[in-house]
Amino acid sequence: MTIQEIADWLEGEVVGEKIDKAPDILRVAKIEEADSGSLTFLANPKYEKFINSTRATAVLVSRKLDLNKYRDRASLIFIRVDDPYVAFLHVLKRLTPSIELFEKGIHASAVISPSAAIGQNVSIGAYAVIGSNSKVGDNTKIGAGCVVGNYAQIGSDCTLYPNVVVYHQCMIGQRVIIHAGAVIGSDGFGFAPKPDGKFEKIPQLGIVVIGDDVEIGANTTIDRATMGDTHLHNGVKIDNLVQIAHNVVIGENTVIAAQAGISGSTKIGKNCMLAGQVGIAGHIEITDHTIIMAQSGIHRNIEEQGKSYFGSPADEARKAQRVYAAMKMLPDMIREIGAIQKKIDALEKELLKK
Amino acid sequence: MTIQEIADWLEGEVVGEKIDKAPDILRVAKIEEADSGSLTFLANPKYEKFINSTRATAVLVSRKLDLNKYRDRASLIFIRVDDPYVAFLHVLKRLTPSIELFEKGIHASAVISPSAAIGQNVSIGAYAVIGSNSKVGDNTKIGAGCVVGNYAQIGSDCTLYPNVVVYHQCMIGQRVIIHAGAVIGSDGFGFAPKPDGKFEKIPQLGIVVIGDDVEIGANTTIDRATMGDTHLHNGVKIDNLVQIAHNVVIGENTVIAAQAGISGSTKIGKNCMLAGQVGIAGHIEITDHTIIMAQSGIHRNIEEQGKSYFGSPADEARKAQRVYAAMKMLPDMIREIGAIQKKIDALEKELLKK
Amino acid sequence: MTIQEIADWLEGEVVGEKIDKAPDILRVAKIEEADSGSLTFLANPKYEKFINSTRATAVLVSRKLDLNKYRDRASLIFIRVDDPYVAFLHVLKRLTPSIELFEKGIHASAVISPSAAIGQNVSIGAYAVIGSNSKVGDNTKIGAGCVVGNYAQIGSDCTLYPNVVVYHQCMIGQRVIIHAGAVIGSDGFGFAPKPDGKFEKIPQLGIVVIGDDVEIGANTTIDRATMGDTHLHNGVKIDNLVQIAHNVVIGENTVIAAQAGISGSTKIGKNCMLAGQVGIAGHIEITDHTIIMAQSGIHRNIEEQGKSYFGSPADEARKAQRVYAAMKMLPDMIREIGAIQKKIDALEKELLKK
Repeated sequence: MTIQEIADWLEGEVVGEKIDKAPDILRVAKIEEADSGSLTFLANPKYEKFINSTRATAVLVSRKLDLNKYRDRASLIFIRVDDPYVAFLHVLKRLTPSIELFEKGIHASAVISPSAAIGQNVSIGAYAVIGSNSKVGDNTKIGAGCVVGNYAQIGSDCTLYPNVVVYHQCMIGQRVIIHAGAVIGSDGFGFAPKPDGKFEKIPQLGIVVIGDDVEIGANTTIDRATMGDTHLHNGVKIDNLVQIAHNVVIGENTVIAAQAGISGSTKIGKNCMLAGQVGIAGHIEITDHTIIMAQSGIHRNIEEQGKSYFGSPADEARKAQRVYAAMKMLPDMIREIGAIQKKIDALEKELLKK
Repeated sequence: MTIQEIADWLEGEVVGEKIDKAPDILRVAKIEEADSGSLTFLANPKYEKFINSTRATAVLVSRKLDLNKYRDRASLIFIRVDDPYVAFLHVLKRLTPSIELFEKGIHASAVISPSAAIGQNVSIGAYAVIGSNSKVGDNTKIGAGCVVGNYAQIGSDCTLYPNVVVYHQCMIGQRVIIHAGAVIGSDGFGFAPKPDGKFEKIPQLGIVVIGDDVEIGANTTIDRATMGDTHLHNGVKIDNLVQIAHNVVIGENTVIAAQAGISGSTKIGKNCMLAGQVGIAGHIEITDHTIIMAQSGIHRNIEEQGKSYFGSPADEARKAQRVYAAMKMLPDMIREIGAIQKKIDALEKELLKK
Repeated sequence: MTIQEIADWLEGEVVGEKIDKAPDILRVAKIEEADSGSLTFLANPKYEKFINSTRATAVLVSRKLDLNKYRDRASLIFIRVDDPYVAFLHVLKRLTPSIELFEKGIHASAVISPSAAIGQNVSIGAYAVIGSNSKVGDNTKIGAGCVVGNYAQIGSDCTLYPNVVVYHQCMIGQRVIIHAGAVIGSDGFGFAPKPDGKFEKIPQLGIVVIGDDVEIGANTTIDRATMGDTHLHNGVKIDNLVQIAHNVVIGENTVIAAQAGISGSTKIGKNCMLAGQVGIAGHIEITDHTIIMAQSGIHRNIEEQGKSYFGSPADEARKAQRVYAAMKMLPDMIREIGAIQKKIDALEKELLKK
């Protein structure tokens, strides 16, 4: 690709005098190892010194970088982009001969119900099972060993990696990626106590609805609703080993890191970020643009947008951090209080004397 | 169904004068949307106002609700039950045309060892693998892609959702439900340190025994015992992504929420409740009727029945909550102690003067 | 086996006068239940009293046990070993008729790409799928329903239990054990925020490299690197439901208990121990021989070797335990500070009078 082609594709801006004489980009490389024909990137300021010595043909830089100081590097061409590292990875991906992860077409061993509606250009792997009255949209790839339940719907341009299970009736949008071993639509965890201490299973009659452009990590579990639906809105990104309980609603573009868990009937707003191992209690609401820091536990509504929370039980992050800093002084505080007691006793005696 | 049929089936009590003239129940609906022929329910007191206006034919109510105040709603028929919401879900399930989740019979592609003993009326899905010398009881349903190891036993009336793995020799009772991706009988995590810092695997020779009426969530893992058995007694209910280590024993009707983990050789009593993300150390005993609140960590025996615990490390819940409330005052306390120090210094000087 | 054979095999030392007359060992048993022909063991000092009464032919004891006090037990033969319990389990395993977990050879239903290189004496279970250009080493056993991606490499003498998924290009060493449902090589969790609040997927172009003698628990997930590799060095042992994020490096012989999670690009040293439910932040380094106690959260580098840490956020264990002990006194401290305030006020008044 020419530098201009790359820049256009990345929606970047080319800066450099000698662009007409520059060779085509054949490969990508680290800034300290790049040579002629290489594209490199500068993301971490620590590496900025290499701008002066790199033998790369072109370098991806942030739009914020002041290029005036590199005027004497006349042979080097800069491509200004929003995020040089991400842009670099996109170019790397494009230049890497792609491995075909999913074979074309439907493997002879896949068991597909005659009543299933399978779209155009679908890939279905070996030993996948597609249930009755289900739908699979155009261009969707379903990995080996996946099981799609009866009446389930998978949109178009989705990717299900191997051994994913989608229970009956669940509905998945367009361009959804689900990693291996994830389970969508298992029963919510609902039991009614009986007088003898045993539990009676509460029927779980709802479904899971997943919007467009959602990604779901490996071995993550999303339970179906008791009634109605457990709902992940468009653009939600969920990491590995996350638990989403029955009737949970997650707003658009919310990101949930690994091993977090959300209890039943809780609503999470849009554009929130839940870090790893966070736990959210049931039947609460968390408003948009909320950040929950790692391992925190939330057990009450969060109503003010744009705040960060930390701790278990969690408090607003700045408050919580002040408390955790103060905690370290506790053994000293106990000692001081003891010393104060003694001084007061001494003062009281002294006063009595007078 | 007639109202009387529904009431009899739910073991409820009909209250209403005009039962003979009431239409049959054809559907269920929310109290504010119900019409003639509908059954609705009242569980949350917030909705009680709708009793006066609902057009439902019948309403499921708690036995505790005072019906005298609704005497003028002569056309409305009440069915008194223990839990109106659960009763409603049961009726909803009964009135919903049921989706057949598991096809009848044994799929042609299932690989079943000739030495396996398969009961009557069993359903085995596509690509399931049933090992040698194993047993599968009557009426049990085994989903697509499940693997039942050699010498394993599954009781009657069980449901294994797709891609469950039951390792060799493990024994599962009657009416057990296991959700997709759960693993029963993987090796306990046991290694003996060697002088060179490496670890030697300790053979894991025991099994997992699961009692009757147990439910196990999606992608939950239950390790086999080193010797003897990891044992889940009758009526235990386990949510998704829970870890049960080798040689753990869990008493009858204990309920364990998602992402909790129990370390090796620990015994949990009967009728306990472990909330989400709880961690229990190894080699301890927790007595019956104990409640462990979310994210708590237990590292010592619990001997007194019926108590609740919170925190990591956990303390009795009331104590722990007092401590967590006090924690928020820590920054203020530090300031106060500083102020006290100054006052005392001032007092000492003052006293010295006199 | 004769006692001498067992001792030689365990690299133990026989102590006992009557070894020539001793019967062969036919079985193992608990010390209080053993009879002639039985081997037993003494690990827990509580059971030492049974040495005087056991009817076992031989007993495995620690090399540290003083045998002089048992001189009158002339008929009993002792085998001194480093760890009597582990030695006992090894003998138990050897004497137990072994169950063949994996059938010999390649099951007719396994789908193996013609371009895959399969070693000698390999077992591949029913419905396993082995991708194009992949390699499987000699003597390796691959369970039913496993999926090995294109260009993936599995070394020799490995065991993959059923339904394991190894994504494309990942490389696994020799003698690696992977338990059921584990996922190796799923995409790292990387997204670049866009101005409209949506996220763009960052391509995950790296792989997972797993060294020799590694064990990986059931339903554990290990993400591929963004670039380069997520690397588990030789001898690493990982329990169930653990999350290893993209670009993480784990040093030799480090042990990680269930439900722990390690965030992206973090490096863990050699011979570390991470207990259950531990969380480690991203982009940090933890040095060798570090111990992290259960449920702790680490968010900064650990540079001093051989220390233990506890708490979330964690501190050095001794400090943290002092803080947690002091925490319990907080409600009392608040009361004391209040009392001190009153006393000081009284003192001030008193002083004013004078």
